[in-house]
Amino acid sequence: MDHMFDAAREAQRAWARVPLWRRAEALHKAAALLKQNKDVIAECLVKEVAKPAKDSVTEVVRSADFIDYTAEEGIRILSEGKCLVPDSFPGNERNKLCLSSRIPLGVVLAIPPFNYPVNLSVSKIAPALIAGNAVVVKPPMQGSVAALHMIQCFHLAGFPKGLISAITIKVADLGDALTTHPAINCISFTGGDSGIAIAKRAGMVPLQMELGGKDACIVLDDADLDLAAANIIKGGFSFSGQRCTAVKIVLAMDTIANKLVEKVNVKVARLSVGPPEVDSDITPVVSESSADFIEGLVMDARQKGAKLWQEYRREGNLIWPILIDNVRPDMRITWEEPFGPIIPVIRIRTIEEGVQHCNSSRYGLQGCVFTNNIHRALIVSDAMETGTVQINSAPARGPDHFPFQGLRDSGIGSQGITNSIHMMTKVKSTVINLPVSSYTMG
Amino acid sequence: MDHMFDAAREAQRAWARVPLWRRAEALHKAAALLKQNKDVIAECLVKEVAKPAKDSVTEVVRSADFIDYTAEEGIRILSEGKCLVPDSFPGNERNKLCLSSRIPLGVVLAIPPFNYPVNLSVSKIAPALIAGNAVVVKPPMQGSVAALHMIQCFHLAGFPKGLISAITIKVADLGDALTTHPAINCISFTGGDSGIAIAKRAGMVPLQMELGGKDACIVLDDADLDLAAANIIKGGFSFSGQRCTAVKIVLAMDTIANKLVEKVNVKVARLSVGPPEVDSDITPVVSESSADFIEGLVMDARQKGAKLWQEYRREGNLIWPILIDNVRPDMRITWEEPFGPIIPVIRIRTIEEGVQHCNSSRYGLQGCVFTNNIHRALIVSDAMETGTVQINSAPARGPDHFPFQGLRDSGIGSQGITNSIHMMTKVKSTVINLPVSSYTMG
Amino acid sequence: MDHMFDAAREAQRAWARVPLWRRAEALHKAAALLKQNKDVIAECLVKEVAKPAKDSVTEVVRSADFIDYTAEEGIRILSEGKCLVPDSFPGNERNKLCLSSRIPLGVVLAIPPFNYPVNLSVSKIAPALIAGNAVVVKPPMQGSVAALHMIQCFHLAGFPKGLISAITIKVADLGDALTTHPAINCISFTGGDSGIAIAKRAGMVPLQMELGGKDACIVLDDADLDLAAANIIKGGFSFSGQRCTAVKIVLAMDTIANKLVEKVNVKVARLSVGPPEVDSDITPVVSESSADFIEGLVMDARQKGAKLWQEYRREGNLIWPILIDNVRPDMRITWEEPFGPIIPVIRIRTIEEGVQHCNSSRYGLQGCVFTNNIHRALIVSDAMETGTVQINSAPARGPDHFPFQGLRDSGIGSQGITNSIHMMTKVKSTVINLPVSSYTMG
Amino acid sequence: MDHMFDAAREAQRAWARVPLWRRAEALHKAAALLKQNKDVIAECLVKEVAKPAKDSVTEVVRSADFIDYTAEEGIRILSEGKCLVPDSFPGNERNKLCLSSRIPLGVVLAIPPFNYPVNLSVSKIAPALIAGNAVVVKPPMQGSVAALHMIQCFHLAGFPKGLISAITIKVADLGDALTTHPAINCISFTGGDSGIAIAKRAGMVPLQMELGGKDACIVLDDADLDLAAANIIKGGFSFSGQRCTAVKIVLAMDTIANKLVEKVNVKVARLSVGPPEVDSDITPVVSESSADFIEGLVMDARQKGAKLWQEYRREGNLIWPILIDNVRPDMRITWEEPFGPIIPVIRIRTIEEGVQHCNSSRYGLQGCVFTNNIHRALIVSDAMETGTVQINSAPARGPDHFPFQGLRDSGIGSQGITNSIHMMTKVKSTVINLPVSSYTMG
Repeated sequence: MDHMFDAAREAQRAWARVPLWRRAEALHKAAALLKQNKDVIAECLVKEVAKPAKDSVTEVVRSADFIDYTAEEGIRILSEGKCLVPDSFPGNERNKLCLSSRIPLGVVLAIPPFNYPVNLSVSKIAPALIAGNAVVVKPPMQGSVAALHMIQCFHLAGFPKGLISAITIKVADLGDALTTHPAINCISFTGGDSGIAIAKRAGMVPLQMELGGKDACIVLDDADLDLAAANIIKGGFSFSGQRCTAVKIVLAMDTIANKLVEKVNVKVARLSVGPPEVDSDITPVVSESSADFIEGLVMDARQKGAKLWQEYRREGNLIWPILIDNVRPDMRITWEEPFGPIIPVIRIRTIEEGVQHCNSSRYGLQGCVFTNNIHRALIVSDAMETGTVQINSAPARGPDHFPFQGLRDSGIGSQGITNSIHMMTKVKSTVINLPVSSYTMG
Repeated sequence: MDHMFDAAREAQRAWARVPLWRRAEALHKAAALLKQNKDVIAECLVKEVAKPAKDSVTEVVRSADFIDYTAEEGIRILSEGKCLVPDSFPGNERNKLCLSSRIPLGVVLAIPPFNYPVNLSVSKIAPALIAGNAVVVKPPMQGSVAALHMIQCFHLAGFPKGLISAITIKVADLGDALTTHPAINCISFTGGDSGIAIAKRAGMVPLQMELGGKDACIVLDDADLDLAAANIIKGGFSFSGQRCTAVKIVLAMDTIANKLVEKVNVKVARLSVGPPEVDSDITPVVSESSADFIEGLVMDARQKGAKLWQEYRREGNLIWPILIDNVRPDMRITWEEPFGPIIPVIRIRTIEEGVQHCNSSRYGLQGCVFTNNIHRALIVSDAMETGTVQINSAPARGPDHFPFQGLRDSGIGSQGITNSIHMMTKVKSTVINLPVSSYTMG
Repeated sequence: MDHMFDAAREAQRAWARVPLWRRAEALHKAAALLKQNKDVIAECLVKEVAKPAKDSVTEVVRSADFIDYTAEEGIRILSEGKCLVPDSFPGNERNKLCLSSRIPLGVVLAIPPFNYPVNLSVSKIAPALIAGNAVVVKPPMQGSVAALHMIQCFHLAGFPKGLISAITIKVADLGDALTTHPAINCISFTGGDSGIAIAKRAGMVPLQMELGGKDACIVLDDADLDLAAANIIKGGFSFSGQRCTAVKIVLAMDTIANKLVEKVNVKVARLSVGPPEVDSDITPVVSESSADFIEGLVMDARQKGAKLWQEYRREGNLIWPILIDNVRPDMRITWEEPFGPIIPVIRIRTIEEGVQHCNSSRYGLQGCVFTNNIHRALIVSDAMETGTVQINSAPARGPDHFPFQGLRDSGIGSQGITNSIHMMTKVKSTVINLPVSSYTMG
Repeated sequence: MDHMFDAAREAQRAWARVPLWRRAEALHKAAALLKQNKDVIAECLVKEVAKPAKDSVTEVVRSADFIDYTAEEGIRILSEGKCLVPDSFPGNERNKLCLSSRIPLGVVLAIPPFNYPVNLSVSKIAPALIAGNAVVVKPPMQGSVAALHMIQCFHLAGFPKGLISAITIKVADLGDALTTHPAINCISFTGGDSGIAIAKRAGMVPLQMELGGKDACIVLDDADLDLAAANIIKGGFSFSGQRCTAVKIVLAMDTIANKLVEKVNVKVARLSVGPPEVDSDITPVVSESSADFIEGLVMDARQKGAKLWQEYRREGNLIWPILIDNVRPDMRITWEEPFGPIIPVIRIRTIEEGVQHCNSSRYGLQGCVFTNNIHRALIVSDAMETGTVQINSAPARGPDHFPFQGLRDSGIGSQGITNSIHMMTKVKSTVINLPVSSYTMG
């Protein structure tokens, strides 16, 4: 591992001296190669993480677009520094020029999760590279083949040897040795609560972490219920709910809750359940332990009196989608993140109750509110304490240049293309001191 | 006049070499003096332009706040330049540093209008000064005493001799000689169509012009009609309608037009009419010719079939407020700017008709739309082709750090504190060329 | 002409509703086509304006790069607006949101000059298009074939009909009708003093004008004289001096002037003179009248006592390069812009004398200073009143994302990719007013 | 401690809803009170940390200026968010608006060091407060009285109860309980290596840490040696060397080293040594253990062959200033930070050797280079891997709006007013989703 990091650091020092347009050129080449290989990589995704075939292709293509956009964004951020003068601060003359710019951090450790092994790798690799860093990627167990294929595209694009490495270990095995390695200058992690443990041992290393979420969907009584229902389905069941920004709890005003639940149920009935190869809406979840966990949440809720609108059904890791109604605070599903195709519904009497519930979660990734009223929409979104609030749409990470961040246990730092580039650089300043004051005339 | 400009230019050259914090210090001092003298200046406003007493004081205080805010905003804008490197552009190495900053334009000619002779002077003077310019002010005929008092506060604050001058001539007399003087490096004008004539003779001089407006108020059928009515009253009758951003035409969906008109009429009945000293809502308009012009618009509308909800009444320059209903495109009041206490109402059948009407005006200052629906609000405001669209409030210039601009014949350039400072400066760049490439390491 | 403008405006309204990435896609396509056709377009340049063959190809390729860079820059500038809150200004609560963004101006009139008919067209067209504008190009008489070829690449790239037009008239003929046409919303002009006349009639239309220059090259006594001499040659004689940013006067400290002149003369002797097809350094100037004008300057200087280091020689429009030494203020060459292969040298005794000379010119485009001393370099560049000062290199427009602007009679507005996009847009703001204060929590 | 944090969090929630201008108003009041009480607070500094009397007053006044500047900077940063549209990213229409802004982190733990107990408290408190945070300050043992006086000024200024607390414990005692308290949302620390330990236990909490430094002063052979000598004295001996940005090692080209050392020695001889009350240049260092540590470094160097230009002399904690010459890599003084009035000199043969030495330190706070050559100055500063490089002046933290940051073990995050405000806020975004595309027209 030391050798890998030594090579990374050495490659990085040379890479930091490559003109920005050449860095961008290499990234554009990698993006083109990724698009060329989209089918083979998508196939890996289908097989490794049971992602529906079409979505798998989309993930690869969107990743290539991400790289292109990042390359161009990066050369702009990195070619523009500031030039400050001292005489805005009391007592100073204009006898200095402070030139500040953003420089690379060094070696970035990228730890993507299983649900987007390509896209959430690329969203760490591309900003790191354009900014002049080296990257060490630790792909997820499931998804590692797709991720390695993707990394291969970077190698084929001609990036220097050592600049991009992959290390495939269980975090449980060598995790600490990896995440606390002294050569690491930045950690960009997406995943679950293991991120908290990583953060606790990290020391003076910039962290960009996106952990779990429990995104609430608040539906007010004046909402477009068809729109809300469609978004609950899309938001809750896409990739079988295995998304950090999935709708993970519905908070419906009780005046419209019955209608809403009815509309959602009609749509649940139409979801296809089966293998990813045929683009089934619901596919097997990632592992047996995950399926067991989801089952545990369902059983707990049922036992404590929740109403299951659909019969609970499971075959291996494949779990049929369920809407769990009349959920109450004492049930685990109220607070825990299922990462599976189940959506709990809590009926609320006031808007404040919904906001209060959202803010009581230890997670704070995203949330959404459905209402047609402009004032309520903005006031509720201001009050919801999550990294992002979506008005009249399900939570979503993209488009990828939008900021994306979680509060509380959902993470630290902000992602999105621009923010990631900023995060993966640091400030350096040069101050030119003059013997006399000099003011720019013209 | 030449002598004044020579002195201004000379003073400006020295002023451009004064540290930013000292420039700010002087402006803060002027602001404090303005607040100290608020009563005497407000009294001038009452007497010169019949502005209600309370509003007159508010104008002076708001002007002092404007100066303070501008001083602090300016030292930030002006102390931060850019430092660009070449290697983002294909083919370049990092062998140059381009330092760019904003420097003063030179001598700014400020021409404020009669309706805010203090505030709209200050909104030109303060940005000009903090940016290192000299200013020549041509106050309006009516309002010149208040303006001169205000300028005196700057002199007392210790600004260098020659840096701030006032010239009180009729534009009709020496206007051309003034506005085309070769020493002028910028014109900031607020007023009527004479601005267009000034622009046509101006040559290569940066222009910031805010001319007339015909701000439409579109009221949709789901709007809060009480809110709309209150804003029509405030927007249309404040300072007797003599404001560029007054509501100058109401476009009401015919399903709610009767209700809206009724609510407005109730409020019109409560408006007090009389002298400014007692804070009457409606006071005499600025001149006999202005009163005659307003009367002409009313007569034209009445004759062509419009319905006047109030009896037309005039005593000297004092005109009682009127709501003119059932206005049609062939009436002058549909297109012309009254600058008086009259509000025309057009009933529309579709939203598109309202937007279309708004966009057909040769003016494009502001507009407003009343609706509670978030989607309609944003879509209509995107479609209204005016410099600013207010959702659920009457048009308004402030708060003063918001951008403020007119499209079409309503002007050129954008105001607001930040934009005015930018407008009153220009870019200068210094390129340091190095014999070899050099990348910042760290 | 009206019909062309009507079509432009109509096309523009639809184009302003095309997603930014699609606008960029079209521009990238045009850039690719331009590169594909570089040889044929370069050939036109060789024949129309006698530009050396290699430089002609470079102009086309650099223009394609310009388009690509502008497309990506534009989507970033245009996708990011501001969201302002009111409560930074005294007296305000947070009950408004002001969303401001940059929107297209409408129809941009682009008037490029003969010396870069492709590149200086593209530098106006590309920013105009990405920003959502239509463009009407008036190519220069000489260079129009190359320009029309280039425009054809845009048409082939699939831009909508009417969005890009070209009109080939003599400004002397229909110029006024063109430049004052009411449908024009912006004029971007590069050329000579006719720009001043255009500006004087333009009215409330944003202007971006780059007119003449008289760029000074100040050589201090501690300068690297070989570097200075090489830059004087490159800066003064490239394209036979027919560049706005050519070195147009050398101001040499008399302690090193002899040495410097000697070094320059050695290099002048090596310049090849002849036809552009064989990449001669010096080729015929653009017209007989131009050659006559240059000859007039030389004769005037000689007659008044200047020393010509090379014999004056002219064949048709081909003028052999000359260094004119011992130039004094009473000679025309001191102040006038030759646009030909002649460089005047003035010997100065103090640095201040050099700066003073530079600042006395009615032009203020660029200037350069040669010195190895960091303090002198920055102090002199601060003191030189030109749009840009180059330290230790000849004046130059590029790289194209650097700001580029002229002071005094050299122009108005700032160019460079970022600045041009800003210049070709205007601000529009939408203010959402809330019934109560609302602060964003998280 | 829990109670204090509960109160802080509760106060913070209310404070985050206070208009920005009111927050600024409170800060301005605190600044005014600080200036009013400058003498009494300065007296504490003199007594607690033996800071020369004049410098003590300067520290308080500069702190008040810091607060004023921060208040105004903050209201600008916090009142301007972004408004992003999706259609710059491939595949998107303009059917969303993403409003992003910066919101408070919550409770900021501020841990200032003994050497600037007032200024380095204020530089954490003021940005925290304007941004809407609560602050818990842990003042240094020595300096706590001054710090508490200063905090009292904030209380007198009327900040809400609970918003600003101080806790005076030894970090050794309750340190862990404090720095890992779950209510803490940000740690801003200035001090020594204990910061590394704090960082290692911090978890997902944004860190702004400025730890030690070993700032190198590289003197090239063309440098102004008088200037260099004066800056070595000022940089090395101010406050007896107890400054993070003190000159802590001189790297002199051997061609000029003798001359430089001679000039420095002349100035060392003139330094007054004694009590702080009479403004002695050199005063007792902060503690006996500190004096012992310094003595250890001196003895080690002397024993290993370094040349002491002044006799070693110590009385209690008072150590007479020494220049230690001919220092070599095997001596502790080469790498360790003395925080006392001793300056080691290493003679270097090449510029690269100097840069290499600077970059080999585990610290990377600031550095400086003395040379008159513009190219060398910039190339060397690019090569020096420290947070800031000063050209032709000693390292320095101010002016306070300049960015200030350390690399490697010198810290994480960037300070300076603007950067601190950014650091003490996080991003929140609201996405308004529209049912159809909508482009802003105008």
